[in-house]
Amino acid sequence: MAAAASSSSPPAVITCRAAVAWGPGQALVMEDVEVAPPGPLEIRVKVVSTSICRSDVTQWQSTAQPDLFPRIFGHEASGVVESVGEGVTEFQVGDHALTVFIGECMSCKHCVSGKSNMCQTLGLERKGVMHSDQTTRFSIGGKPVYHYCAVSSFSEYAVVHSGCAVKVSPTMPMDRICLLSCGASAGLGAAWNVADVSKGSSVVIFGLGTVGLSVAQGAKLRGASKIIGVDTNPDKQEKGKAFGVTDFINPAELNEPVQQVVVKWLTDGGADYSFECVGDTGVVSTALQSCSDGWGLTVTLGVPKAKPEVSAHYGLLLSGRTLKGSLFGGWRPKSDIPLLVEKYANKEIQVDGLVTHDMPFSDINKALELMLQNRCLRCVIHMPKRQD
Amino acid sequence: MAAAASSSSPPAVITCRAAVAWGPGQALVMEDVEVAPPGPLEIRVKVVSTSICRSDVTQWQSTAQPDLFPRIFGHEASGVVESVGEGVTEFQVGDHALTVFIGECMSCKHCVSGKSNMCQTLGLERKGVMHSDQTTRFSIGGKPVYHYCAVSSFSEYAVVHSGCAVKVSPTMPMDRICLLSCGASAGLGAAWNVADVSKGSSVVIFGLGTVGLSVAQGAKLRGASKIIGVDTNPDKQEKGKAFGVTDFINPAELNEPVQQVVVKWLTDGGADYSFECVGDTGVVSTALQSCSDGWGLTVTLGVPKAKPEVSAHYGLLLSGRTLKGSLFGGWRPKSDIPLLVEKYANKEIQVDGLVTHDMPFSDINKALELMLQNRCLRCVIHMPKRQD
Repeated sequence: MAAAASSSSPPAVITCRAAVAWGPGQALVMEDVEVAPPGPLEIRVKVVSTSICRSDVTQWQSTAQPDLFPRIFGHEASGVVESVGEGVTEFQVGDHALTVFIGECMSCKHCVSGKSNMCQTLGLERKGVMHSDQTTRFSIGGKPVYHYCAVSSFSEYAVVHSGCAVKVSPTMPMDRICLLSCGASAGLGAAWNVADVSKGSSVVIFGLGTVGLSVAQGAKLRGASKIIGVDTNPDKQEKGKAFGVTDFINPAELNEPVQQVVVKWLTDGGADYSFECVGDTGVVSTALQSCSDGWGLTVTLGVPKAKPEVSAHYGLLLSGRTLKGSLFGGWRPKSDIPLLVEKYANKEIQVDGLVTHDMPFSDINKALELMLQNRCLRCVIHMPKRQD
Repeated sequence: MAAAASSSSPPAVITCRAAVAWGPGQALVMEDVEVAPPGPLEIRVKVVSTSICRSDVTQWQSTAQPDLFPRIFGHEASGVVESVGEGVTEFQVGDHALTVFIGECMSCKHCVSGKSNMCQTLGLERKGVMHSDQTTRFSIGGKPVYHYCAVSSFSEYAVVHSGCAVKVSPTMPMDRICLLSCGASAGLGAAWNVADVSKGSSVVIFGLGTVGLSVAQGAKLRGASKIIGVDTNPDKQEKGKAFGVTDFINPAELNEPVQQVVVKWLTDGGADYSFECVGDTGVVSTALQSCSDGWGLTVTLGVPKAKPEVSAHYGLLLSGRTLKGSLFGGWRPKSDIPLLVEKYANKEIQVDGLVTHDMPFSDINKALELMLQNRCLRCVIHMPKRQD
């Protein structure tokens, strides 16, 4: 189906299969899409694996941006560089790469600060277009098909900015390290970079999905002595243990508020750190109430499915608590992600256990359904293996 | 009027004048009140000076705790120890002291942590009674008169826990250092301890009252290069300059939102730190929007007069901002306040400029009125000088 350019001739338009969302929440449709050649500093990647993140599903269902359909979702992915645009020196055709939903230009105020991953040039893209020229690289019959997070990996080929991709060793398993391009890294980084969890501390994690379990793993590797996992799904108890959770709470089985259980029975006055990994702004207040006055830190990681306002009683803050946001765990993608890949290679961090399903591209709607029903952690979509 | 016990005989009940609030917002009435002897570990203080803090006025007007009237407000005060209770070794009759609205027991988990001023034994008292036995030391005709913050300095004599008092040199001016027992210290500590303002940074302060001006002073002493003061009172422009404010904004005179002015015109993308010193939870979101993504820190200090819920769009946090509360600037009263008094003595910090009015005790209602009308910074109430 796909007609790729060879590495010696200038890249041409590729026609390939992509799973297109025609409207909010509408089942994805496999379509033939045209993928333009990479622009300056961009690369075109043959996607090998793409896992599905909760935010793909949240944004697919959202009715907030109806003008951005048709759209191709997906951002947690790995692939092989098929062609490179003008000025790209870091990547060569055939390189293995992870795509990342935020980039690192290495030269803006934020990138040079050393304390921020909010690149001013390649930050989170919300308009469905590419950063550089505010247009799309996808089209069907000449009409634009919008991007998601400037990645759009639910397609056989995707164009990404070279600043939003990380070169990885070809020895790494593409269908597992793709999780390091978002979910697994987001959780580890929240524990390590944003909260800076200390040895012997107590931690409570709301939501034991991929991100929450990765927070647990991060906390365990830092030597936290108590890691409380909170989830309404009883299956998460066993899964949690494998990632370091020492105490499991199912709020559905309690006779008192979960924060009271944490403060009164599981910790001496509240946890040192709490993490909101549900994507529910209503949980932020509970997370604040679950951590200690004086020094408790609540980290909010989730992208809410509804109500975008976080709210909490001022007294929770005044009594010495801190509320902090974490996007991609504070990691600077190009500077830091290679380190995480190395840790994976050295078996210092586990990622494989987060993959509950492997599915062919043709089953992508089943994967979305599993995520909607909270019946999976990560479904990895394997793209067709044919050579072009 | 007052009949104090001599230092050689066991302390007896004192009858003295106090400004009693009989109901929320009702003008204070000078009454003869009985002040019980100090209980174990308590001291009884002859109040010399008490300045009026905005939270005295907020709580006096609040209808949330109608059962706690009659009540004696006031907590920012200095005085002379008149008698000591059983077990008190740190204070002697005649010692000069500051009263503090939170204490430090030196032995609870928080006090020994070195990272919290939320003492578990002598924390913020909200029930109008003394920490130790949950009763009052004030009465009129045998009926209890409630305390405020376990201090109640709008009285010629007050009983406080020895853990809520700080010994000071008798060479210090009582009518100025009383501000170090709350407002001035709260602002300095928010800048130094809670935000840890760094050299060359940019700061925006919402509300240039005593606390906000003290934040400005703290930021200036840390070498902040831009200190933006925001206040609807144009008189604060000059006052602000004296405390280090480099740029003044009056939101009433703007054609665009104040956060836009800060982000676009006064800083390169937002301040490094912002401080909410108005006591308006609605300002917290503006303060978050005024500071930089990636690393911006918003510190909330105010006690709100209305709506107790702080709320903000989750995206402000997710993009790398932090929201932190500050009570008494993070200072541990007994461990840290002597240092601030020393800095005052060495003229390293200015406090006197925060006092706009000196008034006799009999004019206390005029002082409350000035505060209500935002026509003062600190009114210092001078208690009668008679010897008992």
